[in-house]
Amino acid sequence: MKKFSITFLPEGKSVEVDEGMTIAESAQVAEVFIDNLCGGEGVCGKCRVRISKGRAEAEKHAKALFTEDDLEKGYVLACQTKIHDDLEVVIPAQSRMEEEQIMTGESAKDSEGPEFRPLVTKVYLELSPPTLEDNIADIERISRELRKKIGWQDLDISLNCLQHLSEKLRENDWKVTVSIAKEKNRRRILKIEPLDTTDHNYGVAVDVGTTTVVAQLVDMNSGKLIGVEGSHNLQASYGEDVISRMIYACGKGGISRLHKAVVKNINQLVEELSVKNGISPEEINAIVAAGNTTMSHFLLNLSPCSIRLDPYVPTADVYPQIIAADIGIHVGPNGLLETIPSVASYVGGDIVAGVMSCGISDSEEVRGLIDIGTNGEIAMGNSEWLVCCSASAGPAFEGGGTKCGMRATKGAIEKVKISDGRLQYQTIADADPRGICGSGLIDSIYELVKNGIIGAGGKFNRTLKDPRLTVEDNIPQYTIAYPAETETGEAIFITESDISSLIKSKGAVFAAIKALVDYIGLGFDQIETFYVAGGFGNFLDIPKAVAIGLLPDIPREKIKFIGNSSLTGARKCLLSEKALEKCFNISRSMTNIELSNYQPFMDEYIAALFLPHTNRKLFPSVEY
Amino acid sequence: MKKFSITFLPEGKSVEVDEGMTIAESAQVAEVFIDNLCGGEGVCGKCRVRISKGRAEAEKHAKALFTEDDLEKGYVLACQTKIHDDLEVVIPAQSRMEEEQIMTGESAKDSEGPEFRPLVTKVYLELSPPTLEDNIADIERISRELRKKIGWQDLDISLNCLQHLSEKLRENDWKVTVSIAKEKNRRRILKIEPLDTTDHNYGVAVDVGTTTVVAQLVDMNSGKLIGVEGSHNLQASYGEDVISRMIYACGKGGISRLHKAVVKNINQLVEELSVKNGISPEEINAIVAAGNTTMSHFLLNLSPCSIRLDPYVPTADVYPQIIAADIGIHVGPNGLLETIPSVASYVGGDIVAGVMSCGISDSEEVRGLIDIGTNGEIAMGNSEWLVCCSASAGPAFEGGGTKCGMRATKGAIEKVKISDGRLQYQTIADADPRGICGSGLIDSIYELVKNGIIGAGGKFNRTLKDPRLTVEDNIPQYTIAYPAETETGEAIFITESDISSLIKSKGAVFAAIKALVDYIGLGFDQIETFYVAGGFGNFLDIPKAVAIGLLPDIPREKIKFIGNSSLTGARKCLLSEKALEKCFNISRSMTNIELSNYQPFMDEYIAALFLPHTNRKLFPSVEY
Repeated sequence: MKKFSITFLPEGKSVEVDEGMTIAESAQVAEVFIDNLCGGEGVCGKCRVRISKGRAEAEKHAKALFTEDDLEKGYVLACQTKIHDDLEVVIPAQSRMEEEQIMTGESAKDSEGPEFRPLVTKVYLELSPPTLEDNIADIERISRELRKKIGWQDLDISLNCLQHLSEKLRENDWKVTVSIAKEKNRRRILKIEPLDTTDHNYGVAVDVGTTTVVAQLVDMNSGKLIGVEGSHNLQASYGEDVISRMIYACGKGGISRLHKAVVKNINQLVEELSVKNGISPEEINAIVAAGNTTMSHFLLNLSPCSIRLDPYVPTADVYPQIIAADIGIHVGPNGLLETIPSVASYVGGDIVAGVMSCGISDSEEVRGLIDIGTNGEIAMGNSEWLVCCSASAGPAFEGGGTKCGMRATKGAIEKVKISDGRLQYQTIADADPRGICGSGLIDSIYELVKNGIIGAGGKFNRTLKDPRLTVEDNIPQYTIAYPAETETGEAIFITESDISSLIKSKGAVFAAIKALVDYIGLGFDQIETFYVAGGFGNFLDIPKAVAIGLLPDIPREKIKFIGNSSLTGARKCLLSEKALEKCFNISRSMTNIELSNYQPFMDEYIAALFLPHTNRKLFPSVEY
Repeated sequence: MKKFSITFLPEGKSVEVDEGMTIAESAQVAEVFIDNLCGGEGVCGKCRVRISKGRAEAEKHAKALFTEDDLEKGYVLACQTKIHDDLEVVIPAQSRMEEEQIMTGESAKDSEGPEFRPLVTKVYLELSPPTLEDNIADIERISRELRKKIGWQDLDISLNCLQHLSEKLRENDWKVTVSIAKEKNRRRILKIEPLDTTDHNYGVAVDVGTTTVVAQLVDMNSGKLIGVEGSHNLQASYGEDVISRMIYACGKGGISRLHKAVVKNINQLVEELSVKNGISPEEINAIVAAGNTTMSHFLLNLSPCSIRLDPYVPTADVYPQIIAADIGIHVGPNGLLETIPSVASYVGGDIVAGVMSCGISDSEEVRGLIDIGTNGEIAMGNSEWLVCCSASAGPAFEGGGTKCGMRATKGAIEKVKISDGRLQYQTIADADPRGICGSGLIDSIYELVKNGIIGAGGKFNRTLKDPRLTVEDNIPQYTIAYPAETETGEAIFITESDISSLIKSKGAVFAAIKALVDYIGLGFDQIETFYVAGGFGNFLDIPKAVAIGLLPDIPREKIKFIGNSSLTGARKCLLSEKALEKCFNISRSMTNIELSNYQPFMDEYIAALFLPHTNRKLFPSVEY
């Protein structure tokens, strides 16, 4: 197979790769991180790169994402462009991703470290055939050989592994591959296959998000990330947000419909991952799923009905490991499904996976994780203690609940800048604007207050002469994109009530952070790092998020945006028993502070309904 | 409810019981043991008792089993006769059963002892409803309460216990009953039911015999035996004996048919036990099954194909605990099926259960178990060591392979006596004779040799003038019942080749015993007790069995006939985790001597083809 050399700029990292690999894959090899929101679907347009040397052409169906001008300049989608030449590839700033976000490099490192111990391992055995002097039972012959190879283990076995074992051994010259799975403190023979199949041992990590379900295919032998696919949560047809789905579910037969929807999601993703990567779903031996508590309940067909109502009680925080096929997931017959445990009704396995993934529970210093979506979940702690809380932030950050809000998909305005009276914006995939996503809204508010267009209370300065500032039905609004610029031909704007919503949202998140820090009895300066995860799309302008009072005013380098830490955590659990064990420990030991019952939070919330905050001393570095 | 007093003679034991109880049930209460081959079906006629005082009448359909004379004398079937009066009941010798055979009394004693710890226990919980201050997950609330009640346990849980748990708790005022099962060294929540169901916790012990499947219903709260049912193994339509079934099974689709047949057997027995005892199959939380290795394989749908062929290898000796419903057994949704482990291809869970049940593995003295059927399995040992072996005895003892042989059912000649030239026999249920069962054949051979009708080599003394001794087709034969006496109107006789078969059978069993004793390096006098189990029907004349050289010549009181020790062992495992644990230990630690490869056995076999034996010194007390 031909080899080509690929150099990534501005890093200048070079790698040699096989012909036919995509630029995105070669970037993984080079440990250069390219944004990959849609998971290599060629849909999101996030992985735009420019070919500065060598010949490479954008795939036909990807061309729709580019202007003529882009194509002339040599822009292609990294995930869709195969390598047939030596290339020099420039990664523009907007296609760049924080290392933590994909962390393929990190997982490769894991795989060499002492912690690499995948949930399912395969062992190939060549047995000596039985004789009259040595006629122990077939399965005992396998166990005896396993003891020689991997030491003594008390192995459980599924009955279906014993069925047809006799023929399997005798028809294949006593050569078999045994898959051994870990569950809690014991091991189980999951599968016995004829001949040597050790090469094929795959796992799938799934982040079951309310909006999006994303899955990664992982080689459990090497720890290598092989592919990633994402899709909208099919439950959306039963309700856009968690609460409306719970309401639907708790009607007759509803839970089962929501359960089947998410199972269908996973099956579709497994199918896509398998087809695209040339493996059989039968070779997938384990799935690790992380989601919020309600999503985990739906996944396992558990009732979430009491989660929604005071006193907010889930059926379970720790979920049994099950055989995935038992709930209709189409992987190998005994493939496992492990669901990352939750902490409480509104602090789910996604947060637990994130806390584990950021190393908060291993850290000597105090670290925090802020996961911002419809709920803002905050976790904080170190190797000694862990606390968390959750506050309803409303849908604004995910693009809901505002006039022109939208999710972070193609055409969403994700960046806004106003300087010298001129407004500039950037959309996802550089498409004609269709709305504003969370990060665009945060940018907008910052720019509006910085330029004096709104005051610290979020009200428009009506005395201002600005053509973008108009009043409709007595509600002032500010135009971000004029009708002529947009896809729909309608203006994209922000109203005073949108701003009010956003201030409430950011106020709730900040109040939760502040209440938790106070509860612990620390100051912000004593937190070593704040990891920020969430559904903003892939970008969050940290300084602006601080400036509007969403995140605390600490040195900006101490705040790290890490994207989907739930998925990263799930993948780590696939590859390391210890990582999964840590999740169980986090679930058990993390103290949940119920904010709905906590007066200091209410006080903080009221105080935070201001830009950046009623108490300016909390934001000393912020100046408008 | 009216109470009546029942006195059993000759013991003179009296009990007071409720009106409507059967005599057989009241005998259990009195710890008097009445034979019960068919399991209270009113079919076998084994439980004949005579009413000497008070009024009781044989049930209509049971009358067929009695002669007019019997009825006049006051004979009834104990299992079919309900109590409506104070009674004095005489138990005739032939309706008497060794205590070990049913051991209801013993199990009742168990239930008070330290070992009473049923496989599934129920715990009733009244939980405090959650509040905002105490809003742990539902299942964690249950676990917390369980920890208070039964101490800390790491409990697994089946996913289906969590499904609908939320509603179950909230609709039943937070009152639930939790069923906890034991598997290996861990515990699992099997079932969570609304309100207090602790009263209903049943188990079923099953002996999966090649010929008969027998099941006992047990109250797992009290240890009490509630009912017993038996039926012919439905696999018989695929082959009369184990070998022919294996041959059938190893054809296409065969295993599954044999598997389904035995599952149907168990379902029918469970259904009958439930209906007759007024419980729901849903309330059965555990089944313990014991059978020979092939039967255990069929039960679990495992291939027995390599059991039959040199080097005789089963798929497994230790079987996973499974959910009975997973193989189509209709008990409670998470009801367990535990299959007693085997030792080798021809030493099965029935023997392991028997060894445990006789206390061989607990004994300081050396004890032996001889289970005689188509195979003779011998186990010997004490608390320090255990050895076993198996020899093919042929079908003679089970009534097969001889001209007029039959199984020990109604009309079988089970006892034979010749004195002063007069022959007397007794049939099961006193019916007109239809054939001769194993015990009848043993009696016959003994009587023939004792009376000089055959010689020590098993050949007829043709010079003898005995009207019963005739020659057909040049083969001498001896008539036991003349055509006029029999049900069919055809003579029942024993041929010289029948005798030859029987000598081979008894020779194989004795040779196996002798080879094993020699292997251990002990003399017969050093064996404290020999327990004899087997498919002879319910009687075996021990002195005659010794006299023909089937059993060793040791003091007769050291040989105890114990009937179905497999079933007794299975029931003990239902009621005592420790008993089951002992079975696992026995399966692991018992050494199997493969006789097909063992020259001393072959030598012993040749030497044993004589009545009682070539070496008369081995049978010093036997005189003809």
